Amino acid sequence: MTVNIANKTVRICGIAKGAGMIAPNMATMLCYIMTDAAITQGALNKATAMAVEESFNCISVDGCMSTNDTVLVLANGAAGNKIISSGKDAQVFAQALASVCLDLAKMVVLDAEGATKFIRIDVTQARSSQEAKKVALDIANSMLFKTAVFGQNPNFGRVAAAVGASGFGIKEGQLKIKLGSLKSKQVRLEVILSRGKAKCTVYTNDLTPEYIKINAAYN
Amino acid sequence: MTVNIANKTVRICGIAKGAGMIAPNMATMLCYIMTDAAITQGALNKATAMAVEESFNCISVDGCMSTNDTVLVLANGAAGNKIISSGKDAQVFAQALASVCLDLAKMVVLDAEGATKFIRIDVTQARSSQEAKKVALDIANSMLFKTAVFGQNPNFGRVAAAVGASGFGIKEGQLKIKLGSLKSKQVRLEVILSRGKAKCTVYTNDLTPEYIKINAAYN
Repeated sequence: MTVNIANKTVRICGIAKGAGMIAPNMATMLCYIMTDAAITQGALNKATAMAVEESFNCISVDGCMSTNDTVLVLANGAAGNKIISSGKDAQVFAQALASVCLDLAKMVVLDAEGATKFIRIDVTQARSSQEAKKVALDIANSMLFKTAVFGQNPNFGRVAAAVGASGFGIKEGQLKIKLGSLKSKQVRLEVILSRGKAKCTVYTNDLTPEYIKINAAYN
Repeated sequence: MTVNIANKTVRICGIAKGAGMIAPNMATMLCYIMTDAAITQGALNKATAMAVEESFNCISVDGCMSTNDTVLVLANGAAGNKIISSGKDAQVFAQALASVCLDLAKMVVLDAEGATKFIRIDVTQARSSQEAKKVALDIANSMLFKTAVFGQNPNFGRVAAAVGASGFGIKEGQLKIKLGSLKSKQVRLEVILSRGKAKCTVYTNDLTPEYIKINAAYN
């Protein structure tokens, strides 16, 4: 993507490889991002950490963290912009980088081994962002939820069970679950906890016989 | 089973139902145990808590905790033994109850939805029993490990990855992995952490296309 920073066009380009063993915690996911922005190391580190937290660290194919997840961001300054260090320029760059990371993270999920569905899970009204993320990832990693989506089986109970098992003492009466149509390739689930203002969005896929076939093969 | 307590024969009989949604934390697993022992409520509670911790709480079919795991122990005193409250009699009864619970827990795993393999995971030389249990359950719940066992694919790397992802900072050089033959129905895995003296044994099964077929069905 390109972004205008102080009247200079800055380009950000990324490549990511995933498929299985995907539950990144910047631990076999590989991602390389190139930009021609002139930017200080501090501002680039900060923008990268923020971008990764809300993109690659919010996807899960199989709940199996890999040993070598990598996001590498290279900046060579060829855009000729005034070096970005803080302020509005850093913010614009960070938003652009976050957008590139999120697009790549979604593509990793779309490309997941054996997947037939792309699932977006929004957990809202949580007490903290940690709570929202844990609940969202626990649903995303529930084999019962993932197989239900594969079977187009609108089993709300499996979602509620994953929320309950997440360990936050969430009460049944506070929980609202909105599950979109399971007929389409893109499935959306919203889980409203009615406990606070924090939220988190996690991306995952269904669990299919094809995933097992791929990963049971001796290699 | 029967056990002799102070010259009286005491009987312990149990029934358990499981299959899927099994990762008990005395949270759809149902287990009823009947005994004719005369025993105080305190001694029975203590024996039950210990027995459950090392049996039902050490199995996982799919990592999905249920909302209503139940272990109910009923004692009617018909054995005519002196009421058990503490000491050697309580110990003998507790061991017998633990043995019944472990047998039932293993049967729940053997009966798991779609399973073709029964897997015993021993984690030894851990720093604490909590560490041993978390590592063992993280391996047991790894989809990649479970599919590898289904495929009779001796992928040590997936075991090592689950150990590494468990979050205890376990070093590669300290880790020893012993994986028995994958050809038989019963598979044994030993993971030696070389960090301490604690250990834990967890029972699980492989992940198969049949599990997905069963759980993807609209019901």
